[in-house]
Amino acid sequence: MDEQALLERVHTQVANLIGQGAVASYIPALARVDPNQFAFALRRIDGTEAGVGCVDNAFSIQSMSKVFSLSLALQLLGESLWERIGREPSGDPFNSLVQLEHEHGKPRNPFINAGAIAVADRLVSHCADAKQQILEFVSGLLDEPVHYDLEVAASEAAHGSRNAATAHFMRSFGKLDNPVEVVLDVYFHQCALALSCRQMARATAFLCDAGVNPLNGERVLSERQCRRVNALMLTCGTYDVAGEFAFMIGLPCKSGVGGGIIASVPKQMSLCVWSPALGPSGNSMAGTKALELFAAEAGVSVF
Amino acid sequence: MDEQALLERVHTQVANLIGQGAVASYIPALARVDPNQFAFALRRIDGTEAGVGCVDNAFSIQSMSKVFSLSLALQLLGESLWERIGREPSGDPFNSLVQLEHEHGKPRNPFINAGAIAVADRLVSHCADAKQQILEFVSGLLDEPVHYDLEVAASEAAHGSRNAATAHFMRSFGKLDNPVEVVLDVYFHQCALALSCRQMARATAFLCDAGVNPLNGERVLSERQCRRVNALMLTCGTYDVAGEFAFMIGLPCKSGVGGGIIASVPKQMSLCVWSPALGPSGNSMAGTKALELFAAEAGVSVF
Amino acid sequence: MDEQALLERVHTQVANLIGQGAVASYIPALARVDPNQFAFALRRIDGTEAGVGCVDNAFSIQSMSKVFSLSLALQLLGESLWERIGREPSGDPFNSLVQLEHEHGKPRNPFINAGAIAVADRLVSHCADAKQQILEFVSGLLDEPVHYDLEVAASEAAHGSRNAATAHFMRSFGKLDNPVEVVLDVYFHQCALALSCRQMARATAFLCDAGVNPLNGERVLSERQCRRVNALMLTCGTYDVAGEFAFMIGLPCKSGVGGGIIASVPKQMSLCVWSPALGPSGNSMAGTKALELFAAEAGVSVF
Amino acid sequence: MDEQALLERVHTQVANLIGQGAVASYIPALARVDPNQFAFALRRIDGTEAGVGCVDNAFSIQSMSKVFSLSLALQLLGESLWERIGREPSGDPFNSLVQLEHEHGKPRNPFINAGAIAVADRLVSHCADAKQQILEFVSGLLDEPVHYDLEVAASEAAHGSRNAATAHFMRSFGKLDNPVEVVLDVYFHQCALALSCRQMARATAFLCDAGVNPLNGERVLSERQCRRVNALMLTCGTYDVAGEFAFMIGLPCKSGVGGGIIASVPKQMSLCVWSPALGPSGNSMAGTKALELFAAEAGVSVF
Repeated sequence: MDEQALLERVHTQVANLIGQGAVASYIPALARVDPNQFAFALRRIDGTEAGVGCVDNAFSIQSMSKVFSLSLALQLLGESLWERIGREPSGDPFNSLVQLEHEHGKPRNPFINAGAIAVADRLVSHCADAKQQILEFVSGLLDEPVHYDLEVAASEAAHGSRNAATAHFMRSFGKLDNPVEVVLDVYFHQCALALSCRQMARATAFLCDAGVNPLNGERVLSERQCRRVNALMLTCGTYDVAGEFAFMIGLPCKSGVGGGIIASVPKQMSLCVWSPALGPSGNSMAGTKALELFAAEAGVSVF
Repeated sequence: MDEQALLERVHTQVANLIGQGAVASYIPALARVDPNQFAFALRRIDGTEAGVGCVDNAFSIQSMSKVFSLSLALQLLGESLWERIGREPSGDPFNSLVQLEHEHGKPRNPFINAGAIAVADRLVSHCADAKQQILEFVSGLLDEPVHYDLEVAASEAAHGSRNAATAHFMRSFGKLDNPVEVVLDVYFHQCALALSCRQMARATAFLCDAGVNPLNGERVLSERQCRRVNALMLTCGTYDVAGEFAFMIGLPCKSGVGGGIIASVPKQMSLCVWSPALGPSGNSMAGTKALELFAAEAGVSVF
Repeated sequence: MDEQALLERVHTQVANLIGQGAVASYIPALARVDPNQFAFALRRIDGTEAGVGCVDNAFSIQSMSKVFSLSLALQLLGESLWERIGREPSGDPFNSLVQLEHEHGKPRNPFINAGAIAVADRLVSHCADAKQQILEFVSGLLDEPVHYDLEVAASEAAHGSRNAATAHFMRSFGKLDNPVEVVLDVYFHQCALALSCRQMARATAFLCDAGVNPLNGERVLSERQCRRVNALMLTCGTYDVAGEFAFMIGLPCKSGVGGGIIASVPKQMSLCVWSPALGPSGNSMAGTKALELFAAEAGVSVF
Repeated sequence: MDEQALLERVHTQVANLIGQGAVASYIPALARVDPNQFAFALRRIDGTEAGVGCVDNAFSIQSMSKVFSLSLALQLLGESLWERIGREPSGDPFNSLVQLEHEHGKPRNPFINAGAIAVADRLVSHCADAKQQILEFVSGLLDEPVHYDLEVAASEAAHGSRNAATAHFMRSFGKLDNPVEVVLDVYFHQCALALSCRQMARATAFLCDAGVNPLNGERVLSERQCRRVNALMLTCGTYDVAGEFAFMIGLPCKSGVGGGIIASVPKQMSLCVWSPALGPSGNSMAGTKALELFAAEAGVSVF
């Protein structure tokens, strides 16, 4: 398969979708991103790479960071992480508090906001400096330094009422050990990581190589943990349309409101597509279509 | 009717219930209150008073304060208050966030926690110093100074995760104008007002006298507003058992987790009963029974 | 007070509201009712009556029948009725199944559809012929025969999917003893009772006279039961706006989608207003306003 | 890989789990099944088969039948099926009506009861005799006749209140075109299909062979439809623990309360395990563990 040619065909096929939808507008730093950008990068486990569009433009990875924080937490805490966080699709919006109330403060899975905040709380408890350790973890995956976009992080904090409500709510059930301010500071920073599509495809390479980072041969997760992160991405990774993604694309994916989507093809390749304008489900419109076309033509659905 | 004799009979009849149940334990200042206390005071609109038990012991009025803050807000804002707060029973627990999510941050009524916090927010917006103004309002009702129990207020703040979640949640929907910390500081203080049964019966005398404070002849609310506060007390005043209270007692009531319950008999008298041990619904066990017996024997049900 | 003059003033004041809104359209027999009708009748406990508009036009009493079936069930079963039915406002729409699921098939109160169906099930268990006994009960209240509108009953059955869902749902929780078809047949017939405003004011006279039917001196309910039916009407009688009715009108009321509303003024009088066009809450628009004006001018709010 | 040897090892490893849990007891015909049975059969796409335990014992396939009815409906209706049924995990119990109310009668996916009943309604609309056509469809998949267990079907109907509630509820939203009795008759019969593990492994062979039935070379579904059925099985196939199954097993699965579970390994093999005693989630305890052990040792997770 000539992935570069395929990516180029896909790029052409989605050209008229790029810029359709709307960029996330809840914080100014995201609202002013040019919606007419598109990039699609992939990395095979043999190390070959392909890409189209602005694959080196850094963008705010937002909820895709939840894959990194979950992986780091699994590395540090192992199975005990699941005492605080479930593993089921939620059926409710990603920022809903309804299920949290019914289930006494235990989030359904690590990819809804409540779950990611609970993961951040676990990291605060187990790290001397959680923010720094996340940064080092992602830098280690990439073999190059990454940084937080501090303007985005500050902006998230300034508009973080819903996340503050979520964190205080979990704390009221005794399911958050650290002060809300400390936990949210970590969470808002991880969401504000700025990486390019090429970097994301590299940094998630371990997900399709049984937990080993092929860039440096280091084990990130056990083979079993790695399969489980992929399973969670498939069942819970794309807001309220995980079923639709499984149905249309058939790959473990994780999206972010910055317009990025990562996908892993187990034993074959990692992908990252980015285009900032979002559809009604909060996923990149051009990015979703590009992934669907790629998966269909490349025949890489897991099903 | 000889109210004093009736109160004494009721006191005897509930003697074996006093101390049954459990005092509120979510903050230390409430947890250490002696559960074996009981007081029942009433004030007729002609000024005669009656009482049994420790009617001059001050206790934490907690949610009964919501009647004061609502009345003050109605005085200051009039009907515009209802743009932010509904007037329907909630059907959900008093501290639930489920309905708040379904109804986009507008609380069902001013007596659930969310509603009272929304009232506090309105007071912060309309008062130079809301805490001080609440204090003056209640002092004015009583014609004697009242004070906040600062230990209780601090304790509420230290254990206020659920209320913080509620406030941040409303703010995320644009339904809270002031900073959460400022609003909750007012709310925690109003809950920490310490008054005796005799004082509560006096301070709520305006509710059964068409909105005029009979102690000094000053109008607190219009006649219509006064009827409405009573209506809200009857339909929403006693946590999740307002229907049961209407059914068993038949009077507008408002209870607090400190173990107090106020009731108003329109055009006749105001009542306050107190006994700190609570039943499963969060209302004073001996107090509820005493009110039921009193209302039945005195024939004062509104129905 | 000259009630007749007051009713005439109220009639004039609401003239422009008559016909506003929309008649219930879920069954043809209701959909074709002329919306431009209005009647308001009252009966004082001393036997004097007053009325304006077409007070002798029979109309479909629909959910107002729930007051009759509840009263009959209380007469037959006493307190044991409450093992199957709660007494709290629901907070959810009158035909919602959400709360029924959370509370394992026990309806919140006898005035939501689920509750009235549960009452019908109790009547089927305790009567040789429940339909006939309801008819005799209401005829007895009126001292004249009443009848079911069989076309309406048949139409309800033909469009009764939601009620069938409700009944089967309760039965799945073991909270309905009789076959769904039998119970719904009773329920659809009681809703199809056709009475005039004047008849409704007479048939509910016992509610404001401590449970005794003033037309014939027979006790319908104990004084205590009577107060409780009034309490339930006030807290739960008008679909999702019981709080609003308590707030604006301040009387125990029960409405029906036929456009009728009954109200009781304890120890004074029973009222029935009717105008078929409904507002968004499912209550008669002109009827609601007429009741509000009457209660305010007559000063009959219970609060 | 020697699948037969692996199945035998797995059988030994789960021996102490067989009979643990409880058989489904909501209908007598299921309640009296011997819990100490176990069978595990597989069929590779090259036609080789393996099996341990009582692989030829027929049992009630129950909810596994939803895969057959969905496949038949997709064959007959194509994409238009999705106008009535969603494709997302529900987050609520398989027989919940809460989400159905919030989403106006459109079921979340075809594997919760509401969804399967909606599929049955579609089949009734598109088949001259839906019951017969389902029978022929499954017989065609197997190349041998299958039959309904009429005692089980009658028993389902006699205890079908919850399903009746579900069907009437959808009909009340205009989302069920045919009479409830007709639709449920089809649904109760499909659930009462009796097949053995070996038969189930054969009848689902098309799911792992791109939609073609390898037994006779006939196309059952398009390649794309086939992937989508697998995706739905993975995200929604095992009641409230689909996330857990994806996490622990990593295969598209569909379970039934009869104690059977089918799984497909795309491009490799179809599996069916059966042991009647269920764990708290409604899935076979020994069967679930056996699948987990098999998937881990055989390395067949899709992730």
